[in-house]
Amino acid sequence: MDYFGHLSRSNSNITHRIHNKWTCFKLYDEALLQQDKDNYVKQSFSDRFSPQCNSSAIETPVILSEEITKARASIKHAMKNTATSKPVPNIGSFYTISEKTSRNVELLRNDLKALSGTIQTLNFSLRQFENRLTKIESNKFTKIDGFETTSVKVEMRSRNAGTGGKRIQPEWKPPNNAQSSQLKLYNSLTRQKENFIPEFGNNVKWYSCGPTVYDASHMGHARSYISFDILRRVLSNYFGYNVQYCMNITDIDDKIIKRARQNYLLEQYKEKSLDLKQALEDVTSAMENFDKKLKETNDPDKLAMMERMNVQGMSCLTYLKSVEDITKDVKEKILSDCKDPLSNWLDAKYGCSVADNSIFSALPQHWEKDYFEDMDALNVAPPDILTRVSEYVPEIIEFVEKIIENGYGYPSNGSVYFSVSQFDSSPNHFYAKLVPEAVGDVKALEEGEGDLSVSVDQLSEKRSPNDFALWKASKPGEPSWDSPWGKGRPGWHIECSVMACSILGSSMDIHTGGVDLKFPHHDNEIAQAEAHYNNPHWVRYFLHSGHLTIAGCKMSKSLKNFITIKDALKKNTSRQLRFAFLLHSWKDTLDYSENTMHDAVQFEKLMNEFFLNVKHVLRNLPDHGPKSFWKWKKEELNLSEIFVQHQQNVHDALCDNVDTRTALDHLRQLVTASNTYLASSHKNKTPPNSQLLKNIAKYITWMFKVFGAIPEDTDIGFPLISGGNQSQNTEAILMPYLNVLSKFREDVRAIAREHKVTKVLELCDALRDDELPPLGVRLEDKEGTQTVVKLVDPAVLMKEKEEKQKLAEKKRKEKEAAKEAAARKKEEKQAQRRIPAAKLFISQTDKYSAFDGQGFPTHAVDGKELSKGQSKKLRKLYDAQDKLHNEYLKECAAMNGS
Amino acid sequence: MDYFGHLSRSNSNITHRIHNKWTCFKLYDEALLQQDKDNYVKQSFSDRFSPQCNSSAIETPVILSEEITKARASIKHAMKNTATSKPVPNIGSFYTISEKTSRNVELLRNDLKALSGTIQTLNFSLRQFENRLTKIESNKFTKIDGFETTSVKVEMRSRNAGTGGKRIQPEWKPPNNAQSSQLKLYNSLTRQKENFIPEFGNNVKWYSCGPTVYDASHMGHARSYISFDILRRVLSNYFGYNVQYCMNITDIDDKIIKRARQNYLLEQYKEKSLDLKQALEDVTSAMENFDKKLKETNDPDKLAMMERMNVQGMSCLTYLKSVEDITKDVKEKILSDCKDPLSNWLDAKYGCSVADNSIFSALPQHWEKDYFEDMDALNVAPPDILTRVSEYVPEIIEFVEKIIENGYGYPSNGSVYFSVSQFDSSPNHFYAKLVPEAVGDVKALEEGEGDLSVSVDQLSEKRSPNDFALWKASKPGEPSWDSPWGKGRPGWHIECSVMACSILGSSMDIHTGGVDLKFPHHDNEIAQAEAHYNNPHWVRYFLHSGHLTIAGCKMSKSLKNFITIKDALKKNTSRQLRFAFLLHSWKDTLDYSENTMHDAVQFEKLMNEFFLNVKHVLRNLPDHGPKSFWKWKKEELNLSEIFVQHQQNVHDALCDNVDTRTALDHLRQLVTASNTYLASSHKNKTPPNSQLLKNIAKYITWMFKVFGAIPEDTDIGFPLISGGNQSQNTEAILMPYLNVLSKFREDVRAIAREHKVTKVLELCDALRDDELPPLGVRLEDKEGTQTVVKLVDPAVLMKEKEEKQKLAEKKRKEKEAAKEAAARKKEEKQAQRRIPAAKLFISQTDKYSAFDGQGFPTHAVDGKELSKGQSKKLRKLYDAQDKLHNEYLKECAAMNGS
Repeated sequence: MDYFGHLSRSNSNITHRIHNKWTCFKLYDEALLQQDKDNYVKQSFSDRFSPQCNSSAIETPVILSEEITKARASIKHAMKNTATSKPVPNIGSFYTISEKTSRNVELLRNDLKALSGTIQTLNFSLRQFENRLTKIESNKFTKIDGFETTSVKVEMRSRNAGTGGKRIQPEWKPPNNAQSSQLKLYNSLTRQKENFIPEFGNNVKWYSCGPTVYDASHMGHARSYISFDILRRVLSNYFGYNVQYCMNITDIDDKIIKRARQNYLLEQYKEKSLDLKQALEDVTSAMENFDKKLKETNDPDKLAMMERMNVQGMSCLTYLKSVEDITKDVKEKILSDCKDPLSNWLDAKYGCSVADNSIFSALPQHWEKDYFEDMDALNVAPPDILTRVSEYVPEIIEFVEKIIENGYGYPSNGSVYFSVSQFDSSPNHFYAKLVPEAVGDVKALEEGEGDLSVSVDQLSEKRSPNDFALWKASKPGEPSWDSPWGKGRPGWHIECSVMACSILGSSMDIHTGGVDLKFPHHDNEIAQAEAHYNNPHWVRYFLHSGHLTIAGCKMSKSLKNFITIKDALKKNTSRQLRFAFLLHSWKDTLDYSENTMHDAVQFEKLMNEFFLNVKHVLRNLPDHGPKSFWKWKKEELNLSEIFVQHQQNVHDALCDNVDTRTALDHLRQLVTASNTYLASSHKNKTPPNSQLLKNIAKYITWMFKVFGAIPEDTDIGFPLISGGNQSQNTEAILMPYLNVLSKFREDVRAIAREHKVTKVLELCDALRDDELPPLGVRLEDKEGTQTVVKLVDPAVLMKEKEEKQKLAEKKRKEKEAAKEAAARKKEEKQAQRRIPAAKLFISQTDKYSAFDGQGFPTHAVDGKELSKGQSKKLRKLYDAQDKLHNEYLKECAAMNGS
Repeated sequence: MDYFGHLSRSNSNITHRIHNKWTCFKLYDEALLQQDKDNYVKQSFSDRFSPQCNSSAIETPVILSEEITKARASIKHAMKNTATSKPVPNIGSFYTISEKTSRNVELLRNDLKALSGTIQTLNFSLRQFENRLTKIESNKFTKIDGFETTSVKVEMRSRNAGTGGKRIQPEWKPPNNAQSSQLKLYNSLTRQKENFIPEFGNNVKWYSCGPTVYDASHMGHARSYISFDILRRVLSNYFGYNVQYCMNITDIDDKIIKRARQNYLLEQYKEKSLDLKQALEDVTSAMENFDKKLKETNDPDKLAMMERMNVQGMSCLTYLKSVEDITKDVKEKILSDCKDPLSNWLDAKYGCSVADNSIFSALPQHWEKDYFEDMDALNVAPPDILTRVSEYVPEIIEFVEKIIENGYGYPSNGSVYFSVSQFDSSPNHFYAKLVPEAVGDVKALEEGEGDLSVSVDQLSEKRSPNDFALWKASKPGEPSWDSPWGKGRPGWHIECSVMACSILGSSMDIHTGGVDLKFPHHDNEIAQAEAHYNNPHWVRYFLHSGHLTIAGCKMSKSLKNFITIKDALKKNTSRQLRFAFLLHSWKDTLDYSENTMHDAVQFEKLMNEFFLNVKHVLRNLPDHGPKSFWKWKKEELNLSEIFVQHQQNVHDALCDNVDTRTALDHLRQLVTASNTYLASSHKNKTPPNSQLLKNIAKYITWMFKVFGAIPEDTDIGFPLISGGNQSQNTEAILMPYLNVLSKFREDVRAIAREHKVTKVLELCDALRDDELPPLGVRLEDKEGTQTVVKLVDPAVLMKEKEEKQKLAEKKRKEKEAAKEAAARKKEEKQAQRRIPAAKLFISQTDKYSAFDGQGFPTHAVDGKELSKGQSKKLRKLYDAQDKLHNEYLKECAAMNGS
């Protein structure tokens, strides 16, 4: 044990008395170099020192940290100012450093030079100091250089105390991981990639703008929802964030109202009886009205489409002038060829009369269902929370009231508007954070306000053209809700602010939406929420998915390249579509084209072949237990290194704004390297390493699960069969249960027969004939023996059932026909009986020309007298008929008499 | 537009000409405050400035970063040294700052005060500066204050340029996520939790000490391998690291050699024909030999065990003296009762003759297979790479040569030893980093060297008792390999250093092993690898799993509480064992006891009931499509908040040294909150929110998958059925059929009740109580609502049934007893009736002394005549009995008559 020195601290300065080492300075240097400053300091002081020294001598880490910063500055200072120094004692003596005392730094430097071994491994000295610290003797208040200090006398052991004594662990430091990446996301709020940092812990609050449900979802929708699905899965399943994903459904909207009203009016018109004059008048008016609209249109795409409709409508009008009457076909032609002009005209004329609210809710309900079907087909995960505007009207009204209260909204003529200038001029606010350059873009603003909300009247209600509607007074023909400002409905932008805040609170981490929504929708959303909460960071990361083009062109109805999701899924599987998306950057324009899909299909094929090859290897080599492991040669070490490197590359790519394109490229390269390895092991006739290949294939499979290209297991809870491999086939799993079912039914049936409980017997039949066949179960009842249970492809069973029904139908029809025939025969026989014998031959003038008084034929048609043989034959018939008729007469008499 | 100022930089200094703002300083301040320094500077300069200014004016980010550091220091300096300043121009003029020029900082401070609005929002000014930067005019080389600088003239716009003009995005900053946690691991190298930082990117190189395969794996092994399996899964599946997990199998070892040799010799002895004399001689010798060993033993556990063996062996010897011949039974008794003494004696006598190498490899092969079977049963994932010592002998020899070459090893008598003192005295090395205080622990060192390697000869080969064997010269009866030092075999510690380096390279992130291996094994491993590579950080994080005790006691053969994994799996499922491990800290001692397992079973049960309840909710409410979403009320918002909070708590717990105990506690609390929600929605008769419950159940399921308590899907590649959900699990297959079965039964039951068909009702009960439970189906009949179908582990159901039966049996017995009592009572009553009134009192001679002719008492036992009152009372009884008896007689007559 050798005496080492003092460690002392005063009230507001740290003073150091060190002997022989520069240890204490190092402590501060190290502490400040740590990224996690407070933690390190806490460790350095509290954890390491406090167990040994009086804990009351140690203050809170934060204060220590401040003191250290000061101390460090003064040390640096002292090191530089060699001029204004006073002598410092020699090595072996004490010296004190504080902010007020200057030092002879040359001497200090000499000390350090003398201790160059320690200086070289500067990081070592702190730990060394601690390691060798065996005793802290006492804390005393003394005056050193006029400062009141707490002196701590420490005792140290020499390093080479030998291996026999009690030794202490050497210094350790974490590696300097220069390669480590952090997730960055391209934030529309800064137009650059920013480190992604959630506001609270590991939780990510996320709001995504959902669809306005008034028509079928198209590839433009797929662009957004598949992209966000990928982002969401990568953040949850790859980066491990606990994501809360909230999406809305816009089910109150100008487009929905208009579409619902027009559909309804057109349907009514379809039902109406129509004469030619009326039809001509109507179509003429509709086309005139349409022509007016056409002339007002500037959008070239819209114009092209309207012109096409105009030509079609006009030719229909010409045709109409040529017909003479409104037949069913003519009416159908009008309704199809003039659909849009007619709808518009009907809406203009009768729109305001539509009052039934159910008309406005049925349409969005229909298309919401359709939307979810499309998303399911695309393997887009449903949101955690879904909000519909129609469910949040009270919250919207409350929110608007708060905005008015805060001075950023004003009612006008039953509507409420947001005052952009009031908001923007506030020092805490900034309007249009996403697209500041778009402020004043009238076209964008009007589109944002909606078709039904840009009349001159409405526009003049606003104090400024930049203002936008928070609440719209409902006109006739529009759905409405009661509010402090009269009957009305929510503006478009307000819904997202309100619903997002209702679920996620006053701020969120991520907001997503299509790039088209940036301005004014998202900028207005931000303004509204910030006006309500006075929170300048309502959304931290605003992510916008890129545009979608169709073979290089903008998708539009006018270009006839409007492709619904269902259309696209007819051409490619949802997995191929997803690979196409993954092979492109989510934030840039994606071109949906033959080439794009070809690449995706090729990628899928390459991957699938690899999977099949690995599965083949695994089937033919042990992939489990000791036999599956054998020593790695340089080929395996090489492939493993490539594997590790590509895993890192994929990681880096995903950190770089979720760059799936680069990630997939690395997966492709990994597959190529694996294929090369497989080929060479094939060539060298050495078995490939199944474990390594399995791990690579499992990694790639896992990445595809992360990307949503392979469905995740959606299980809940514990598996039923514990421990073992549960890949039993369906039949093995099912049969025990089906046997129980069949036996139960049989027993019930037997008792029901005995007791004649018809209803139960009917249930037994229904189970066999209706319930089980769609599930692929065929019960075959055998008289006197056990019912046979068979598992068959449900499709086959359903076909069987259909055929059985057809056969039954056929039999039924045959039976009916036979029955009818029999009835007819009977009827004929009856008719025959009604004929008196005297009238049996009298009408047969094609055979006979003369009859006796009783109507018996005497001469044939050729005038010849009938032969005796002929007469005899006819007499037999005559007599039989006479008997038959007499019986008939008797029966009639009997019936009448009774 | 207003003119803003200059930004200029010279070759090695940055000079600033700023007008009106302190913007540029701020830039540097900000840049340095960023953790990711270089990146930030790169962004600040390259990304933001370079598009606008001549790119050649921008140097590499690293150089900029250095310059900024200097500039910042000089600014700080200048700020402090108010004394040695020269006048600085007023606001509005230029001033230049460089390391060589001093300034009037008071004036600078005045500037800043005047701009206090900007200073307050210091973070704002940098962004503001950039936002308002509209033009960088030109770069010119000019001389300012004697420095050659590149002047950049920038033009700025005023903030309130109005909403009509082109505006620029406002400032943005990331949130300050104070709650964010980072993974820390308890590192044996520092004996405290350290931030976990891998050496390279996202890749984690991990070596785990595997088993020495010479016997069945016991719960001590399970302690390590389950713990590391949990750590590995959490690091891979929760924290998303790409883990490369390498494990070894020790298949050359003193224990293996000895066991293999003894097994072989005992087997040979078994085959040998044996006469009584020979047998007596052998056993006597063996027991003498054993007695010698016993006397040498100090370990109390070992001693106790050996003494027991000794007693058994001696009694066998006595028995042997009493028999007349060596029958088969006698031989078997010898081989079983004297097994250990005999084995030892045979080994001592014939061990050195065993030469066939296959004898030494068959034993480890057998137990390796057994080990992997146990691991599979425990759902411990196989390592990515498995290395066996026997496969790495050439690499070991090469490694040892390198250690000798580096001066840390020396050959001696055909063996090679590691020189601890040589290593420890090197300034770059430190011996026994893990347990420095154990250096010199002779017992630990000898255990480390192995039973066959601690003879006096061998010990004397060493230069110091602290040295340990790298290579052992093989003696006769030991397997051997050629080496530069003659025929020999690897020492124990060297194998891990060599194999780990062969696969993972010269350093790794994590090394794991049982706490028993710390010293000398792991310390020697470290010394060897560092002696080879001269790398002071061979392992960054050394993790040791805690001890395992059995009901509070150390597990040992002598205490007869040695529990194999197979034993444990007979009592509990592997999932229950894992829950027991998860419910304890991996690094502390775990007590395997009734209580521990009870807690685990209860935890599993709580979770399972929750899963079953959620599944029931999901089956009966739409869990998919629009119908599955409805508006959240405060109950849902509340539960969701609890959900988010517990997710965060689980995350924090896992960050804190993978504290699964706390994590599971939060999952338990989450389930409790969900159950409360379910109960209240049941009470309020509102349907529970199926989506929210599903998400909670899926999250918990996912966590259990992460922990290895639910097997992951091990699929490779794309699912066979495209598009749809391929959840080929048993439950998805079964439920449609079970629903049909349940519905059919319900319908039949309803009709049977209506028609009172008892037999059918009995069938319905039998189906529920007898048929379905063995198949794992629990039907819960609910009065007035649908029957609940639950799929449960059949074992659990059968146990339930058993308990129910026990209860029923108990009730039945109670009922029977009651019935018997009633019958007895009736019988007694009947017996009473059979007594004629005349005989009622006649026998009561203890009460009465005289009777009249009809047997009616007249005098009491004391001879006194009965009083009137007494007589009256007795008369009443007499008459009643008379009536009773007469009725009885009548009944008898009637019966006889009939």
